Amino acid sequence: MRITDLRIHSIAIADPPLRSSYGLHAPYALRTIVELESDEGVIGITETYGGEAQVRQFESLRPQILGANPYRLTGFLSPMVEGQGGGDARSQTYLVPGENPLDATTRTYAALEVACLDLIGKTVGQPVCDLIGGRVREEVPFSAYPFYKHAGGGGEGDDAREDAYGEALSPEALVRQVRQMVARYGFGSVKFKGGVLEPDIEIETIKQLYQTFGPGVPLRIDPNSAWTAETSVKAGCALAEELGRGGYLEDPTAGLENMAEVRRRLLAQGITTPLASNVAVTSFADLPRSVKLDAVQILLCDHHYWGGMRQVQHLARLARTFGLGLSMHSNTHLGVSLMGMAHVAAATAHLTYACDTHYPWQSAKDEVVAGGRVPIVNGCVRIPDQPGLGVVLDYDQLARGVERYRKCRYRKRDDEAEMRRRVDPNWRRVLPRW
Amino acid sequence: MRITDLRIHSIAIADPPLRSSYGLHAPYALRTIVELESDEGVIGITETYGGEAQVRQFESLRPQILGANPYRLTGFLSPMVEGQGGGDARSQTYLVPGENPLDATTRTYAALEVACLDLIGKTVGQPVCDLIGGRVREEVPFSAYPFYKHAGGGGEGDDAREDAYGEALSPEALVRQVRQMVARYGFGSVKFKGGVLEPDIEIETIKQLYQTFGPGVPLRIDPNSAWTAETSVKAGCALAEELGRGGYLEDPTAGLENMAEVRRRLLAQGITTPLASNVAVTSFADLPRSVKLDAVQILLCDHHYWGGMRQVQHLARLARTFGLGLSMHSNTHLGVSLMGMAHVAAATAHLTYACDTHYPWQSAKDEVVAGGRVPIVNGCVRIPDQPGLGVVLDYDQLARGVERYRKCRYRKRDDEAEMRRRVDPNWRRVLPRW
Repeated sequence: MRITDLRIHSIAIADPPLRSSYGLHAPYALRTIVELESDEGVIGITETYGGEAQVRQFESLRPQILGANPYRLTGFLSPMVEGQGGGDARSQTYLVPGENPLDATTRTYAALEVACLDLIGKTVGQPVCDLIGGRVREEVPFSAYPFYKHAGGGGEGDDAREDAYGEALSPEALVRQVRQMVARYGFGSVKFKGGVLEPDIEIETIKQLYQTFGPGVPLRIDPNSAWTAETSVKAGCALAEELGRGGYLEDPTAGLENMAEVRRRLLAQGITTPLASNVAVTSFADLPRSVKLDAVQILLCDHHYWGGMRQVQHLARLARTFGLGLSMHSNTHLGVSLMGMAHVAAATAHLTYACDTHYPWQSAKDEVVAGGRVPIVNGCVRIPDQPGLGVVLDYDQLARGVERYRKCRYRKRDDEAEMRRRVDPNWRRVLPRW
Repeated sequence: MRITDLRIHSIAIADPPLRSSYGLHAPYALRTIVELESDEGVIGITETYGGEAQVRQFESLRPQILGANPYRLTGFLSPMVEGQGGGDARSQTYLVPGENPLDATTRTYAALEVACLDLIGKTVGQPVCDLIGGRVREEVPFSAYPFYKHAGGGGEGDDAREDAYGEALSPEALVRQVRQMVARYGFGSVKFKGGVLEPDIEIETIKQLYQTFGPGVPLRIDPNSAWTAETSVKAGCALAEELGRGGYLEDPTAGLENMAEVRRRLLAQGITTPLASNVAVTSFADLPRSVKLDAVQILLCDHHYWGGMRQVQHLARLARTFGLGLSMHSNTHLGVSLMGMAHVAAATAHLTYACDTHYPWQSAKDEVVAGGRVPIVNGCVRIPDQPGLGVVLDYDQLARGVERYRKCRYRKRDDEAEMRRRVDPNWRRVLPRW
């Protein structure tokens, strides 16, 4: 079996004006859909970060991809994740996921690995999770992922999307948003994006979520490094009960040293709420120091930038070995990525938390998966019986996404610039802010 | 695809009277060959530790194996390596590999994983290394593995094997043995089994090997925990030059604390010869403490007891992350195991040393692989173009091995008892001995 064609599709998808410490989501998020076609006419697909730099990465590998056996391409390209420097990208606190040049190679490798696995799975009639060790679960749990947001559903002009959730810039509005998400998708846990309003308001938001949903729904807050160690400790203490019931405090502050200080000070007060990270720890190279300092107790994997599904499985084994939990990070994505996340999660024994997903923020109008949006039922994505990722492309929808990309102004993600453009011309990302 | 038959074959293979700190190899080593046959009539094979306990383990899983999809069986059984206690077996200094009850489940899982991968590979026409991420090398380097030994080629009575190597109980005889092995197989490095004679004699043996083969042939010595920390430091100092050129000092002393002490004292004298282990560290559970103490700088993987090929790949990623080297342990084995070792090594980027193998000690008369012994050329096993492991069984040879097992007295490995039976009725394994 040989790969005979590589097709790269840059698409834009409507994204609501979500807020985080990085700034504001633009009206369009960028994604790249890649197809690998084999000489048997089977097509493997993948979805990853968007924009021009990502396309250039794929294009630069075209000579190696064309003609390759998809079973071997991942070995041949493995220096991208295992070689000198490969997989050793250091975390970059200031850049949004997908825009850190230090993990460009692991991101590109990851996307190709998934496309190869989908191609292999569709060729031999087996789901991807069963190609990488076999499923350990049939259903993969995801979390509700509420954001403070401005009014609006994403997209611009004729292409503007309906806003199912409305403005949410207060604790009460945030709780309402989560209620909607839980009603619609059945989520059993909540990951709340903080780092946007005054810490006291965010603490109050978590308290209201806890009052609303009770101790059976684990809560997490992720201020994306917006806080000082002092504020982080204060929040950790204030929310000991609310986050302590199977939840966690994610990247409250920047850097391993500050995270370790927060951990030490919380433990000194008897508060065992674990700290999670996808900012202080984003690569294997960050782990020895993190382990040594006990800076992070829960790793957030994400096959999109950790170097693919097998690297995530390696990470899970490492986490289990060192007594760390494993959760999963998400970036704005469509159904192809969601299925990739579900498959690797299904084949990873030591996944100890429900995964993050931005999927509720996207719209059926943008979905490129044939048959429409992937169902999330009772908070879970079920591994389908279909081979590979279990989804194929809707080429009309893909063409619409490509056309949207062609017309929109965005070629990379820059939440800070977007914040200045639409909310506050003087806004800058300041860390720590509080 | 479903597994429709499980066939378990206990075999005995002639083994020369090799010495180690465990005692003496018996005239027969025990192995188990397992076949999984699919409803398409394809047969996947595996080789692992022998004896009755191993057979019972496989038999106990028969209900789960029969009817299973080989792509999914490894996921279904993954609690054996990833579940509570699974993969967390602690090292057991006093037991020979394959006889530690604490890793019985990981050994059994590993064997089944390899059989499933062979079955899948033979079904889809792909080599095993390309099913687990893809080869990163076409040829896998192995080391010469000289032992002090008594005269004799293994086997008993009519079944006694010719002794190609003769007695070797002095430095000179050991060097002659290595010359023979290097001439025959082209090995480019030497792993020497020590812990048998007085340390000064073993040091002299390494010095003579170094004089004979020069600094271009990395040397290792493995006394299997026979030494005190003091003796280990003395040997490390005496052999700083000889082991320092790409070699290592393997398990000179027992326990992580002693290993860490040896490391500290060698470093204090400016000697950076790394310490390797497959005794102080035999499972993931041993790693946090080993890393913390800097007790071991090179991990010896072995898919047979670490829980299979994918667990070895996880281990390799962990090793690379924490700046540890990776080599490969061997137990007495035939060609099916050799090919398993070669495939996982071929698909593991961070394998930083040539692998161990006992293969030169076995004879063509015992080989169960069709076509005879697997070639080792220039010290390397080349990944064949054939699918799966690249080898199939010779059923006449297998039947001979089964008959030999039926007739021989051995049902488990016990080098200490064998030492008492044939060399010294009062011999006991004493650690440390020197």
